[in-house]
Amino acid sequence: MPVVSTYTIGDNVDSIVRTLKLASEDADVVLTTGGLGTTDDDVTRQALAKFLGSKLQLQSEVLEKIRSSFARRGRSMPERDKIQAYMPAGATALENKVGIAPGIAAEYKGKLIFVLPGVPAEMKEMFESNFEFLIKNFEFKIKNSSRQAIVVRKLKCFGASESAIADLIGDVMKRGRNPLINCTAENGVITLHIVATAKDKSKACRMAENDENSLRNTLGNLIYGTGEQTLAEVVGEELARRKKTLAVAESCTGGALAKLITDVAGASRYFTHGWVAYSNQAKIDELGVSKDLIAQYGAVSEQVAKVMADGTKKKAETDFAIGITGIAGSSGGSEQKPVGLVYISVSADNNTEVKRFILPGDRELIRLRAALTGLNMLRLRLLN
Amino acid sequence: MPVVSTYTIGDNVDSIVRTLKLASEDADVVLTTGGLGTTDDDVTRQALAKFLGSKLQLQSEVLEKIRSSFARRGRSMPERDKIQAYMPAGATALENKVGIAPGIAAEYKGKLIFVLPGVPAEMKEMFESNFEFLIKNFEFKIKNSSRQAIVVRKLKCFGASESAIADLIGDVMKRGRNPLINCTAENGVITLHIVATAKDKSKACRMAENDENSLRNTLGNLIYGTGEQTLAEVVGEELARRKKTLAVAESCTGGALAKLITDVAGASRYFTHGWVAYSNQAKIDELGVSKDLIAQYGAVSEQVAKVMADGTKKKAETDFAIGITGIAGSSGGSEQKPVGLVYISVSADNNTEVKRFILPGDRELIRLRAALTGLNMLRLRLLN
Repeated sequence: MPVVSTYTIGDNVDSIVRTLKLASEDADVVLTTGGLGTTDDDVTRQALAKFLGSKLQLQSEVLEKIRSSFARRGRSMPERDKIQAYMPAGATALENKVGIAPGIAAEYKGKLIFVLPGVPAEMKEMFESNFEFLIKNFEFKIKNSSRQAIVVRKLKCFGASESAIADLIGDVMKRGRNPLINCTAENGVITLHIVATAKDKSKACRMAENDENSLRNTLGNLIYGTGEQTLAEVVGEELARRKKTLAVAESCTGGALAKLITDVAGASRYFTHGWVAYSNQAKIDELGVSKDLIAQYGAVSEQVAKVMADGTKKKAETDFAIGITGIAGSSGGSEQKPVGLVYISVSADNNTEVKRFILPGDRELIRLRAALTGLNMLRLRLLN
Repeated sequence: MPVVSTYTIGDNVDSIVRTLKLASEDADVVLTTGGLGTTDDDVTRQALAKFLGSKLQLQSEVLEKIRSSFARRGRSMPERDKIQAYMPAGATALENKVGIAPGIAAEYKGKLIFVLPGVPAEMKEMFESNFEFLIKNFEFKIKNSSRQAIVVRKLKCFGASESAIADLIGDVMKRGRNPLINCTAENGVITLHIVATAKDKSKACRMAENDENSLRNTLGNLIYGTGEQTLAEVVGEELARRKKTLAVAESCTGGALAKLITDVAGASRYFTHGWVAYSNQAKIDELGVSKDLIAQYGAVSEQVAKVMADGTKKKAETDFAIGITGIAGSSGGSEQKPVGLVYISVSADNNTEVKRFILPGDRELIRLRAALTGLNMLRLRLLN
């Protein structure tokens, strides 16, 4: 189902009505986000009713759900929240599993209108939960039997730049090819999108699979996962499968590595301890880094990174430990130790590996990339 | 400068040319993002040249910058990256301070076209760095002298819901009012946008200031900052100003609190140690939580939260410490201790405060809100 157009407009009833009209003329399904809250600038609900030519009605079941969602948190519903239980006559409320405001599904001249909240986490969850419903409704409505099946596979890579990956895979990225292969980059994670188009879904699947296999042959360990998998999920699954444990010690990443690891539900199966040894004193007190070592090599050095991982592994009594020390900026860099310089160590029973990186980007990116690079070093260690 | 329309289109030369035409007919300034990378799906550069009716030319100065940006990281430029030094004849390269691909500024029939990279961090940085240039070019070109000055002020609030804040401030949010007051919510941070419109800028400023003052009178300590300020910045500034230090101990937030604190450049002035005590053993070994206390009250309890903060303050020898223990989900909840239950403690010289929260949202939101709530408790502690 291709996206034919998108519009971004203000919180204004007339603009919303005009845009719903435009969009529903062009497309079979119209998604809107935002304007479902409780404040006076939230007018999407009213605009939808106007567009549909219907009135807003209180849906008592929806009101009950809103009330009980407050009650669960030991609070009573503010009167103002009642507006969120009003739906245009004939429309369906979509459950909001993350926040309060329900979404709305409505039909207009055989077209589907999905009205989602603007809070990103709520919008994403509601879209994902209702996607099947959307597709089902869409499929039985469509008249055009000549439409094609599109299958998309995503391969997630880490450890090489977009350019390096493009060079490795050669001319499969040429425009006009089917499957089409696209490439996006964010925070050092390169995603290859294989978009296969065919008469039927099983053919498109086979085409995408063939491309996936040949890309895997070419890229090998650079591919860490598929779909929406994160490095932390892949590494965590492998640790859990082997019943191994992990602890981390961070300086410049300041908790970003532990956060990535514990973003994954169930991380307690393998992750036990993290130290954010931000000051030199913390490295000395907590991780067994000696004052002399810091004096001799500096806190940002191969030597300190090694002791951080080794000290962490020993203290936490885990199978693996990651240590990170570096200069995230914006200040603190020098000619010899520039902003972006990061030493990362992975300690295991039989050896400790330390690597030096100069990471690009601003403070936020350097920190995130350093944390991801630590996870990737552990991933490769687990593979070998 | 209002946004009159936005378009999202595929990586296709003809669509981009068609859309640049449409957009430049409607608006004085056209911004595009994406398609400046080195892979075959990056065609915005070519499309811009086609739209302008000019040819791409190698700008050797730009090429030199790209080469040296690789050199700084000890790498040689892949041949493929050379494409990024090509600009349509007459266009200006915009420096990319975060990544590699330069942006492009071009003029077409008195309209300005700004072509920015799609990587979010690069796009944002480039937009912000060139905003003044954009505005200046825009201002001397505009013919319509009847245009109005718009001033926007943002007030950032934490500690009450969007509904509660709307109730407190009453009918100033009514549509049609000038200044218009809008409200957005993300991760528990509520932002009030004061949008003042007047003939000249100084009048609009005064109107916005008046509204800011009256909102401050009403909302008091719920407002923690302005503009793009984060809670961690505000708390950090206050700690630095008083020359006080902070350490943290986290269980369910798993490093998210330390990360928020160290997202701020210069956090080493006040932040020294963080513990991610994810397992019970880590709480016992590192923070002085006794086995018996966990057995009696559970790891998620007021008692454990208190010892976590007190133990951290003592061990790190800081002026303040924050402790967080809770159930972030998705699993691990029970009727008595549901997902979202979080105890947060702030330890200071003269007392330790512990609060119980039931936070809404999914795992990601619960963790982020818990970390922000810890910072907010410390902020209020510093105010009193």
